[in-house]
Amino acid sequence: MGIPGDEILSRVATGDGHGENTSYFDGWKAYDNDPFHPIHNPNGVIQMGLAENQLCLELMQDWITKNPQASICTKEGVSEFKAIANFQDYHGLPDFRKAIAKFMEKARGGRARFDPERIVMSGGATGAQETIAFCLANPGDAFLIPTPYYPAFDRDFRWRTGVQLLPIRCHSHDNFKITEAELAAAYRKASDSKIRVKGILITNPSNPLGTTMDRETLRTLVRFANEERIHLVCDEIFSGTVFDGPEFVSVAEILQEDPSICDGDLIHIVYSLSKDLGVPGFRVGIIYSYNDAVVSCARRMSSFGLVSTQTQRLLASMLGDDDFTTDLLAESRRRLLHRHRAFTAGLEGVGIRCLKSNAGLFCWMSLKPLLKDATAEGEVKLWRVIVDEVKLNISPGSSFHCTEPGWFRACFANMDEETMETALRRIRTFVRRANEAATAAKTKKRWDTALRLSLPRRLEELTVLTPRLMSPRSPLVQAAT
Amino acid sequence: MGIPGDEILSRVATGDGHGENTSYFDGWKAYDNDPFHPIHNPNGVIQMGLAENQLCLELMQDWITKNPQASICTKEGVSEFKAIANFQDYHGLPDFRKAIAKFMEKARGGRARFDPERIVMSGGATGAQETIAFCLANPGDAFLIPTPYYPAFDRDFRWRTGVQLLPIRCHSHDNFKITEAELAAAYRKASDSKIRVKGILITNPSNPLGTTMDRETLRTLVRFANEERIHLVCDEIFSGTVFDGPEFVSVAEILQEDPSICDGDLIHIVYSLSKDLGVPGFRVGIIYSYNDAVVSCARRMSSFGLVSTQTQRLLASMLGDDDFTTDLLAESRRRLLHRHRAFTAGLEGVGIRCLKSNAGLFCWMSLKPLLKDATAEGEVKLWRVIVDEVKLNISPGSSFHCTEPGWFRACFANMDEETMETALRRIRTFVRRANEAATAAKTKKRWDTALRLSLPRRLEELTVLTPRLMSPRSPLVQAAT
Repeated sequence: MGIPGDEILSRVATGDGHGENTSYFDGWKAYDNDPFHPIHNPNGVIQMGLAENQLCLELMQDWITKNPQASICTKEGVSEFKAIANFQDYHGLPDFRKAIAKFMEKARGGRARFDPERIVMSGGATGAQETIAFCLANPGDAFLIPTPYYPAFDRDFRWRTGVQLLPIRCHSHDNFKITEAELAAAYRKASDSKIRVKGILITNPSNPLGTTMDRETLRTLVRFANEERIHLVCDEIFSGTVFDGPEFVSVAEILQEDPSICDGDLIHIVYSLSKDLGVPGFRVGIIYSYNDAVVSCARRMSSFGLVSTQTQRLLASMLGDDDFTTDLLAESRRRLLHRHRAFTAGLEGVGIRCLKSNAGLFCWMSLKPLLKDATAEGEVKLWRVIVDEVKLNISPGSSFHCTEPGWFRACFANMDEETMETALRRIRTFVRRANEAATAAKTKKRWDTALRLSLPRRLEELTVLTPRLMSPRSPLVQAAT
Repeated sequence: MGIPGDEILSRVATGDGHGENTSYFDGWKAYDNDPFHPIHNPNGVIQMGLAENQLCLELMQDWITKNPQASICTKEGVSEFKAIANFQDYHGLPDFRKAIAKFMEKARGGRARFDPERIVMSGGATGAQETIAFCLANPGDAFLIPTPYYPAFDRDFRWRTGVQLLPIRCHSHDNFKITEAELAAAYRKASDSKIRVKGILITNPSNPLGTTMDRETLRTLVRFANEERIHLVCDEIFSGTVFDGPEFVSVAEILQEDPSICDGDLIHIVYSLSKDLGVPGFRVGIIYSYNDAVVSCARRMSSFGLVSTQTQRLLASMLGDDDFTTDLLAESRRRLLHRHRAFTAGLEGVGIRCLKSNAGLFCWMSLKPLLKDATAEGEVKLWRVIVDEVKLNISPGSSFHCTEPGWFRACFANMDEETMETALRRIRTFVRRANEAATAAKTKKRWDTALRLSLPRRLEELTVLTPRLMSPRSPLVQAAT
């Protein structure tokens, strides 16, 4: 009768229904309970499940030190405190929108143009995804999404909106590229099931793949959207992390090059500063739509997730500094490239292959040879060993809805170089031991025994750990209904 | 087919469907087009429609100047920049939650206790209301709400959740107090219509009345909620603005005094710093629930509206300063009392009566004698004259769902003393002219002629301006369906 019962309480307590799937949740718990520290806890779990960018924060810190007027809390800027703290226009500070538009252009190599009047704020990309889903779809409607995909879309895009996400299957033999055949198949399958498809949702650069989408694939998606009169939502929150060729192509560029390719009303971009700048705490999400009605509606919805004006003020100054942002983006890419090369080279040294990538804060690596069973369960078992014994919290592909077992995402930009080296050493030791055990047993399938030996006893008791999808509505009200 | 048509575009363009009703919207437009400025535009529209608190911002500014270490943008605090900007735990900074809990206690005279572990963040009270609605109700479920009520609840509580708000009628002859009879009648009416009532939503202190709820009424509501097993959501965002007796009683106090009065799982408080401190730009909303499942669920939903860590850091320090907050709250109340007295005395001088109030940033005043017709339409016509000719943007009672015509809310804390005096002079002149015109016409109904003379010609063309309720879902998707 309106009070949540035990069933809901337990569902909330176990993390079900909040958009993070179980293996994600468990891995983070393992890290939280025993976090690595080079001196105080050198045998702790290293967090490689967090797509966080810590590589250039000190450049921002330097800028702040040199530009005290940018803050409303310094003697140089405090005279603005009253006006800024009291400001509540949901359009945001004009200078903030201008600076964001400019930064978005720069992160795309200056080839795309963004109009500050179309910049809409939201509470991180999380809020942006939800807002765009609310704007474009009704409960029960669906968006197609290529797999593997970012697990928290199940929270951001689906949870409170009731929108469905239907997979477009991508395969390792295509380097996980979206093919027109799989796109059409996913669309047809939904139509056959009488599900109304309202759009396609992609991340470009891809999370978890770390790849940028080639121009032709992007054009295929745009054309498909136009032909079927469905929306295309492009999450481009990693656009500033492209550290290597081929160069990043934004959907904005595709539209600019050939406006006739698609009705602009169907194209929407999600952006954020959490990844490119490494400031997730600031909660800056952006919706950029070519559709006037969406801009207008999303702006009204932005009341639920406006960026603090204190933060708007700071970023308006910082991102308005042309020389600084040029240097920052260039240096950030140099550092990411260096880190990526060091990490993937270390993995290659023990025969671990990564998908060739040029962006993002992570690698998509194949541990297929280490699987005992080439199944989702086998993958989760291996993941459990890596968390519990190797003490690395990486993320299993199944948590990204990947349909091929054995892929894992490992993040490398949320730690210092020494920690990454420690992680590599642990991986090397693990693989070497696995190799030795396999050799000793002289089995054909090299890794079998090694894995069996290394499994903790309590694995026997493990129940299925495959990600459970949440209900689109609050878990609290489901059982109360 | 997924693209918004002309109909939706026009609905969004006219402001329908975004949670602000028409008269609100028009009045703000009038202000935006012609804003008062003492020197540059002395005949412009004075904004009295904004419940904003500008009376004590300079005390905070002084504090910031004296406490540079509180900010991550000063040389004293910048060493924390990296950790704070990069922080992304949706529990928030522990010191922030502690400081908020302490401040909430202080704003309630130290008589209520708040546990930092139950402090959940949201994007302003706007986000808090939506989150609590998502947690407690399904689309179509209803909350009862005493009238008059804050118009933007139609956006915050209803828009994206699909929850209904059903009025509990309150009357001027009861000083707009909630009576048990009207409460029961509203509940019965919903039940008769097969609408599932999930709770009661109140503001205490009341917006727009500026009154605090007496202990007995509050206990009646709590008991009713307990008996019917429905929730009670208490929006207490004006708790720090109580400037006069009787003393403010929080629902937290009622529960503490007598835990047996109600199952705590049914009680939830919404708080914010936008009104008490006058910092709406900082977007600090708080959900405080006695229900563990709601705390847990709301915290996960807070991902959509977290407070910027830059702002959390500053407020953790500022609100953690015990002496400062004691002085700030006391001084704020003194200034509000002074302002309220000056404004209401000015109104009384020309015979305008206000509901006796002791809190908030506004007065609830009766302009019944100035109405040509004692109807909602008559009220809107008078309001139009006040906006267009008297150049004061006050808010008509109908926009607050008030069922008795002739009441208006006038805000007095979003301006300096001189501007308030200018507003009072304009009101005096208006009423005097209306009186003179009435006397000249020697009619029995004194104000009739005066009003007719003062109506602008284009009023004839005005269509009905009564507030239209929005659809609970995005206007964009309604017509596209």
